[in-house]
Amino acid sequence: MKAEIISIGDELLLGQVIDTNSAWIGQELNKLGVHVHFKSTIGDSREILLKTLHESAERSDIIVMTGGLGPTKDDLTKHILCEFFDTKLIQNDAVLAWVQSIFLKRNLPMLASNNEQAMVPEICEVLWNRNGTAPGMYFVKNNKVFISMPGVPFEMKCIFEEEVIPKLQQQFSFPSIIHKTILTASIGESFLAKKIATIEDSLPSHIKLAYLPSVGAVRLRLSAYGNDNRVLAEELNTIVDSLYACIGEYIYGEEEDTLSQSVGKLLAAKNNTVATAESCTGGYLAHLLTSIPGSSSYYTGSILAYANVIKENILQVDKNILIQNGAVSEACVKAMAENCRRIMHTDYAIATSGVAGPSGGTKEKPVGTVWIAVATPTHCIARVFNMGDHRGRTIERTALMGLDMLRKELIAAK
Amino acid sequence: MKAEIISIGDELLLGQVIDTNSAWIGQELNKLGVHVHFKSTIGDSREILLKTLHESAERSDIIVMTGGLGPTKDDLTKHILCEFFDTKLIQNDAVLAWVQSIFLKRNLPMLASNNEQAMVPEICEVLWNRNGTAPGMYFVKNNKVFISMPGVPFEMKCIFEEEVIPKLQQQFSFPSIIHKTILTASIGESFLAKKIATIEDSLPSHIKLAYLPSVGAVRLRLSAYGNDNRVLAEELNTIVDSLYACIGEYIYGEEEDTLSQSVGKLLAAKNNTVATAESCTGGYLAHLLTSIPGSSSYYTGSILAYANVIKENILQVDKNILIQNGAVSEACVKAMAENCRRIMHTDYAIATSGVAGPSGGTKEKPVGTVWIAVATPTHCIARVFNMGDHRGRTIERTALMGLDMLRKELIAAK
Repeated sequence: MKAEIISIGDELLLGQVIDTNSAWIGQELNKLGVHVHFKSTIGDSREILLKTLHESAERSDIIVMTGGLGPTKDDLTKHILCEFFDTKLIQNDAVLAWVQSIFLKRNLPMLASNNEQAMVPEICEVLWNRNGTAPGMYFVKNNKVFISMPGVPFEMKCIFEEEVIPKLQQQFSFPSIIHKTILTASIGESFLAKKIATIEDSLPSHIKLAYLPSVGAVRLRLSAYGNDNRVLAEELNTIVDSLYACIGEYIYGEEEDTLSQSVGKLLAAKNNTVATAESCTGGYLAHLLTSIPGSSSYYTGSILAYANVIKENILQVDKNILIQNGAVSEACVKAMAENCRRIMHTDYAIATSGVAGPSGGTKEKPVGTVWIAVATPTHCIARVFNMGDHRGRTIERTALMGLDMLRKELIAAK
Repeated sequence: MKAEIISIGDELLLGQVIDTNSAWIGQELNKLGVHVHFKSTIGDSREILLKTLHESAERSDIIVMTGGLGPTKDDLTKHILCEFFDTKLIQNDAVLAWVQSIFLKRNLPMLASNNEQAMVPEICEVLWNRNGTAPGMYFVKNNKVFISMPGVPFEMKCIFEEEVIPKLQQQFSFPSIIHKTILTASIGESFLAKKIATIEDSLPSHIKLAYLPSVGAVRLRLSAYGNDNRVLAEELNTIVDSLYACIGEYIYGEEEDTLSQSVGKLLAAKNNTVATAESCTGGYLAHLLTSIPGSSSYYTGSILAYANVIKENILQVDKNILIQNGAVSEACVKAMAENCRRIMHTDYAIATSGVAGPSGGTKEKPVGTVWIAVATPTHCIARVFNMGDHRGRTIERTALMGLDMLRKELIAAK
């Protein structure tokens, strides 16, 4: 079973938009056990799309297209699909009603170009797009499947998960593959590899381990290939148990968990609350915490003291600390955390203060120097790091490290 | 002059790595006036690379490859290039000396596989890689150029800028292409298209317009093709002027600007400051503002009043407002903005309060209801929106809308 992905849009060839869709689709197809052997990117051009469609039908069983379905003149995909499949556009009443309801809800007038969104090729099955106005399309020709979806990532992902995967599973019988992902923080890839070398070396050949590093975290993905899901699941569980025994302190979750979700679960389970006092993270720590639905039950808020005068006036950091130790210091970040906890009346508080850069570094406190403190009901800890010289990554790493420090305190307090 | 890009590596097909190289190369070639008409991604496979090379020679004048040049066994590109060009690997003494010097500097032993890095196809010109051990390669065959570079982004970029571009400019005389990107916010793609329909319809055939939508913003990209850069630039300027005349109120910047950069420039130019009082945006508005280096000169901080008790105690919102109007109300969001401006001693303040969801909605204030206020030295404005039912996008749209409301106030105050 071979698949290929066709990404459509001049903006991709021009490099103005980075194609993240095809990587995501590649991962999803792989999880199903479908091998993606080719990807191509083409512009909004009739000739090239037609040629690519003919070639793809020769070399692949599943062809997944994204892009070119918007309401504007440069979007041609739907018309070219009609030509390729020798069919015509007809109005789909359910889609039209849906598009109309979206405009009604947003209190916007419908334009003629929006009506066009409800026109679909007669022979396709419509893939419902509950996040937008352009429906996806599913075609079958000579037992090959052609899928066309809009290029907007969140629309495409939802259509793929809710509509495409079930249809593919119905049409084909895929081999058994199961995956298990273990999420670690606060440890680098090569150190992790060294710690779990014995486990990795003893894996049977039908079970693969992949390291997927990202800023501040490494995901370990186990994939087991075989014929019996139950047997594979048992094998994976045994390996996962041994990973927990070996590197449990670094594991903050599984599958799609985020650190803020894990922290949120721990707080909610103990009926505890947290607040934040941010300087160098500039609101990003609060953003991670509040990205989680329901976070208002354990998160009260943040004092973002970007200017020192706010640290002094609102966070009540002693002026002498700011003068003698500076804002990027153990004394300051501990005062920020402790005062935040008191002012916000919470059980816990996280504080950050550092030099995110690119300017502001000194010889003693170079760009990347970051202090993080966690205040708990019984004590306050602080750690210093060098997060490197990239502003965006320093902000991200600091926020994640702050969450992981809180996670460890919550577990220790159990 | 047509170019294509071939990205090589199993990790790209598996989706474990997002291909950012090809977007960057696409941008660079476009700036040269070379049209990238096709991109493909293939695995580390002899057959597929050979086939792709033969096809690329049929359809393109410049073929740029990245990846597959590492010292490990799965990297095959160099051997397949020898096969394709009917040549053999020979040792390049300069490269060998360079590789040895790198290992010496890092105090690491040379492995046999590292010596391999100095073996290059006899007929190629070596492209110097001053950031790594794998050299790039430049081949000419039937007046077509084949370029092979390592996949590590910073190595590739340096080779391309320092070695590839000068060689291409020496070999070809390029036509002119120039681009201009106009950035708009607070208006949807189809409404924008309607407003500028007359301008779009009257574009000459050598000037193309593309709509590039993202959450809360639409970029308009104009591309002009011809022989004389100066003539094209004048033509584009005339069109850009007419766009400003038609939709100027929605335009927040050009090229790679972000809304927070545009707002930051306006604030810095007037020596003004801003603070934020966030509820539903949960720190994301602060994060956007503080993502910009140097933002500490105009941004003092935020009070993130997620819980009502913080709105009352720290932001000093009248308890009666919270009881009678609720936190998601014009009265509350205006009080938040005005008090924030006063407490933080800034010229401006932005406040947000809304129901981000998924729960917390009522019939009167459904999920997605958001109030945004901007307090200025002379007045305070507030607007209400329905941002839809997706938590993450509501947060993002609200933050961007708040920035755009501030931008308009800053321009009006000029």
